[in-house]
Amino acid sequence: MPPDTNVLPEQIQGDASLLLRQRYGAADAPSDLHWNGVIASLLSHRSVRAYLPQPLPKGTLETALAAAQSAASSSNLQVWSVIAVEDPARKARLAAHAGDQKHIVQAPLFLVWLADLSRLKRLADARGIETAGLSYLELLVVGVVDTALAAQNAVAAFESLGLGTVYIGALRNNVGPVAAELGLPPHVLPVFGLTVGYPDPARPTAIKPRLAQAAVLSRERYATAGEVDAVARYDSTLQAFQQAQGQAVEGWSARAIERIRTPQALHGRHHLRQALHDLGFELI
Amino acid sequence: MPPDTNVLPEQIQGDASLLLRQRYGAADAPSDLHWNGVIASLLSHRSVRAYLPQPLPKGTLETALAAAQSAASSSNLQVWSVIAVEDPARKARLAAHAGDQKHIVQAPLFLVWLADLSRLKRLADARGIETAGLSYLELLVVGVVDTALAAQNAVAAFESLGLGTVYIGALRNNVGPVAAELGLPPHVLPVFGLTVGYPDPARPTAIKPRLAQAAVLSRERYATAGEVDAVARYDSTLQAFQQAQGQAVEGWSARAIERIRTPQALHGRHHLRQALHDLGFELI
Repeated sequence: MPPDTNVLPEQIQGDASLLLRQRYGAADAPSDLHWNGVIASLLSHRSVRAYLPQPLPKGTLETALAAAQSAASSSNLQVWSVIAVEDPARKARLAAHAGDQKHIVQAPLFLVWLADLSRLKRLADARGIETAGLSYLELLVVGVVDTALAAQNAVAAFESLGLGTVYIGALRNNVGPVAAELGLPPHVLPVFGLTVGYPDPARPTAIKPRLAQAAVLSRERYATAGEVDAVARYDSTLQAFQQAQGQAVEGWSARAIERIRTPQALHGRHHLRQALHDLGFELI
Repeated sequence: MPPDTNVLPEQIQGDASLLLRQRYGAADAPSDLHWNGVIASLLSHRSVRAYLPQPLPKGTLETALAAAQSAASSSNLQVWSVIAVEDPARKARLAAHAGDQKHIVQAPLFLVWLADLSRLKRLADARGIETAGLSYLELLVVGVVDTALAAQNAVAAFESLGLGTVYIGALRNNVGPVAAELGLPPHVLPVFGLTVGYPDPARPTAIKPRLAQAAVLSRERYATAGEVDAVARYDSTLQAFQQAQGQAVEGWSARAIERIRTPQALHGRHHLRQALHDLGFELI
């Protein structure tokens, strides 16, 4: 049993209420949730894009990796790997492939999370066993799911240690050059990167509001009742957040729709299928 | 800052050592890791397939959902949804589509996690804006990643409250019938299910060993040095585990290879691409 299931003292219960108002806006914040240190840590998540130069304490990566490997794995296939990049020159080259996000260079540690079917391929090849299953889209999905479950556990571990992270999906903008930089064999997809380091206290980040729970949760069957109103409230909540953060006040829906309007909005990721073919994924 | 970053007392440190030996076997257990209640809870994960009938306390689902929504989301698109299924007849029908896993029926709550591009489609359609980006494989990957990050946070929250879970990837064996049962609109993929409930103490489950850290972690560039030996040690570790659990003593590698040898081993999931086409995913 996890050791940390007690209800925390009243002071933290107060934090719960604050965290939930920040996450959902005052109108949509749920109440009467359960609470403990794990839940408090998860709900405190914020993306961190400004880091102090100080390196991670010894053992930190190994701790996060143990958390990652403790996540579920489909049929225990463990079809993921991770590369820890600390060389500033390599981080700079990877950043150039990923929309020039300078926090990739600034963070002391950059993790590249891989959907890795090559391990099973090597084991099968060594025994002369065929690997016809690898041709199927399903195996890519298994690899992506396994990778994401593992990475999210690592994020939870890092954050519990006071570190900050942000996922770098832009690593998929240029999958081929990233694979070459990292020496990836066929049947390995870099799914996303993750920057890790101590947050720069001079550039604090806020908790990003999300859609109301009712907008993502259905009971028994898929339902969209109330969606239009929930999105309208969320647009207002996010506008207020953007204003408070000194960001462009765009709300949510207009910007989210823009992201799926054209292939150009995908910043190169509309070539992902071809890039996967080049990496040996047939996707039949 | 999360409230729970303190080093725990010596007694729990002892648990750390035990948990790591269980996770990696004695020969590959890392030492000198960092430790706190969050990490202890994550490393205590085990899959639970036998449940007590008692329902979840009020507010439990909402708590896990708040954790799920606190996970990162690619460009904040929030392209996932979840359906909470409690109706025994519906759980039974879903179980029939997912390899007849009886814990789907037994668990008081069955969550179906959806990669959901339909929300953005509805918003765009209502404004007469085109959605050409939805045709691309990239959007499926974004949806699957977002869904998995969210679900894993929910799992961490459930487990911190003493509940057990197991992911049901077999929901992808028959995507079309599952989508029909749940009334899913186009552009929604049921990625996996998740059973949730109190573990049956009469059927305790053990921590599943994983590959050594060195087998999944590379530094700077992809490396496979030591992989053959690591897999051999892991096969032995897993054989010992299987023997202790009264399971068939198969080790790991032979069974994992079998899973990718033929399309038939995918139990219907080799039709996933066609099923996705039928659900409106062009995957260009």
